[in-house]
Amino acid sequence: MGSNLLIASMLPVIEAKLQQVVSRLDEPRTRIFHEMLTYHLGWSGDGAGPDATGKRIRPLLVLLSCAACGGNWQNALSAAACLELIHNFSLAHDDIQDGSILRRSTLAVWKKWGMAQAINVGDALFILAQLTLLEQNNLFPPEITLKAGALINTACLELSTGQFLDLAYEDRADMTIDDYLAMISGKTAALLSACTQIGSVLGGADDVIQQKYRSFGHFLGLAFQMQDDYLGIWGDMELTGKSIESDLVAGKKTLPVLFGLKKQGEFARRWAEGPISYAEVRDLSEQLAKEGAKLYTQHFAEEMTDLALQSLRSAAPHGEAGSALYDLTNILLNRQS
Amino acid sequence: MGSNLLIASMLPVIEAKLQQVVSRLDEPRTRIFHEMLTYHLGWSGDGAGPDATGKRIRPLLVLLSCAACGGNWQNALSAAACLELIHNFSLAHDDIQDGSILRRSTLAVWKKWGMAQAINVGDALFILAQLTLLEQNNLFPPEITLKAGALINTACLELSTGQFLDLAYEDRADMTIDDYLAMISGKTAALLSACTQIGSVLGGADDVIQQKYRSFGHFLGLAFQMQDDYLGIWGDMELTGKSIESDLVAGKKTLPVLFGLKKQGEFARRWAEGPISYAEVRDLSEQLAKEGAKLYTQHFAEEMTDLALQSLRSAAPHGEAGSALYDLTNILLNRQS
Repeated sequence: MGSNLLIASMLPVIEAKLQQVVSRLDEPRTRIFHEMLTYHLGWSGDGAGPDATGKRIRPLLVLLSCAACGGNWQNALSAAACLELIHNFSLAHDDIQDGSILRRSTLAVWKKWGMAQAINVGDALFILAQLTLLEQNNLFPPEITLKAGALINTACLELSTGQFLDLAYEDRADMTIDDYLAMISGKTAALLSACTQIGSVLGGADDVIQQKYRSFGHFLGLAFQMQDDYLGIWGDMELTGKSIESDLVAGKKTLPVLFGLKKQGEFARRWAEGPISYAEVRDLSEQLAKEGAKLYTQHFAEEMTDLALQSLRSAAPHGEAGSALYDLTNILLNRQS
Repeated sequence: MGSNLLIASMLPVIEAKLQQVVSRLDEPRTRIFHEMLTYHLGWSGDGAGPDATGKRIRPLLVLLSCAACGGNWQNALSAAACLELIHNFSLAHDDIQDGSILRRSTLAVWKKWGMAQAINVGDALFILAQLTLLEQNNLFPPEITLKAGALINTACLELSTGQFLDLAYEDRADMTIDDYLAMISGKTAALLSACTQIGSVLGGADDVIQQKYRSFGHFLGLAFQMQDDYLGIWGDMELTGKSIESDLVAGKKTLPVLFGLKKQGEFARRWAEGPISYAEVRDLSEQLAKEGAKLYTQHFAEEMTDLALQSLRSAAPHGEAGSALYDLTNILLNRQS
């Protein structure tokens, strides 16, 4: 990620901004609450460090999109921090909802401090996100901050409905690939498209260019999720940081699984019989590949990647930030973890 | 509550506004999600109706404070709906955190649809609250909406830290009455003071008057919580709608309990021995009263009520809305449930 100099220079500034926002909770009575948030954000406790913070993709997209439209990215730091905090709010709640024990190779907050406090950690991250955005107040006309707030919260509503669909589909045998696309549009693409659009809004782009940035983020999100689904079955388990769990064992209805179910072949037959054990994972993922799900997922992800890059090109991003957006896209979509 | 004509005329308008906001989720894919929210808000499912909606105290405080400052309360409807949705977001999460099976005499959302979806219901209510506020945009200068947003989210952060303290104190033997006051300032008073202050902001009051409205809401919140604590032990169980659970059985460290623990008498001795059974509730609540906790709680609540009324008087609220604020205060603080 640090291969690009501009990105490398932004990362510590993002981190400092996030730490400043979260430090509002660093008061005598709420010190442990503060610790829960700093742990979740990867700064304290077991495993703290760059691996635990995550890649900060969302704030980078905000800052780079702003700069690529000719804006001063330093002015977009509040919005960037806001979007990273929203991402982390959703992760804190997701981990409880999915019963995920690990988050970025360390114990999930709910596993460490209990479910009740983890709900509260997510809530506080969301609230801090809102406050952070409202604080950029003096750098932009108030109308711009209100527009950013509406875009962000509209994306959050899509995030929440996407999460509803994800949970609802767990119990549905007839989930289709269309259902999947609706779900990941909310769960992954909505926030990324908000990042790129808001970056362009703060960078002073006109409405047409804003829509192109939005579209770039949207397809980037879809491609990213499909890549994630691919890695969840055929990725190197050690690199994904998701313990040794395969998405097959978790029973997640990801894109390759839905493809396999539609095929109604050997894979679908086995899936219908009930939970898949660790011992079966290797053979069953090979079977799924043989039925065409691996190629299908790769191609679909590539199509979304192409659309993302087309949108980005048509937005004509400027200078070093523009190159960095291409770099970031390539890094994200060629990742092994 | 409907004894006052102005209040009676506001209630259906608040309800219609809330329904309009929540209807954003009334789409084919998210119909069940929409149902979860309408159930939580008291409009659908078993027990739907006025008892299940709650009293809508928060939106009434916003509208009445606005009108009492000379503003048009219809313009404050978005802010009023926002604050009611925030209250309901916190209830949805509280019920999970506390393991409360009933909410306003009907099953809590988590008990009906599971914990994962209930977290999501809370999140969606909170997001809708933010969107609703931002939509009032055209009725006020953008600076005013930003100010309201900052006040609301600052109150939410206090709500969240109050909830952190509440959960953290469960396991602490040395919780003091000061700790209690810090906790309820966040959990109850913060949102009520935001309601009254924002009402006055939207009503066009100056900073001095805004602070008086804020102060009114703050003390009203403290008095309300102390009254709630009183009813949780000595209130008529059938009227509280909290099943047959007494706060004593739940082991909640409310104001009377903390008073009793500080006394180190018979009540404190029994409390230290472990969970209290239903069979003991009557004798133990009488013992606690005998040790002075009942009078202490009543007096403390009355003191807070006096401060609330003093603040209100000094804000010199106008007309019918002004009288309605006094009425509402009296109704709230003399309630039996």
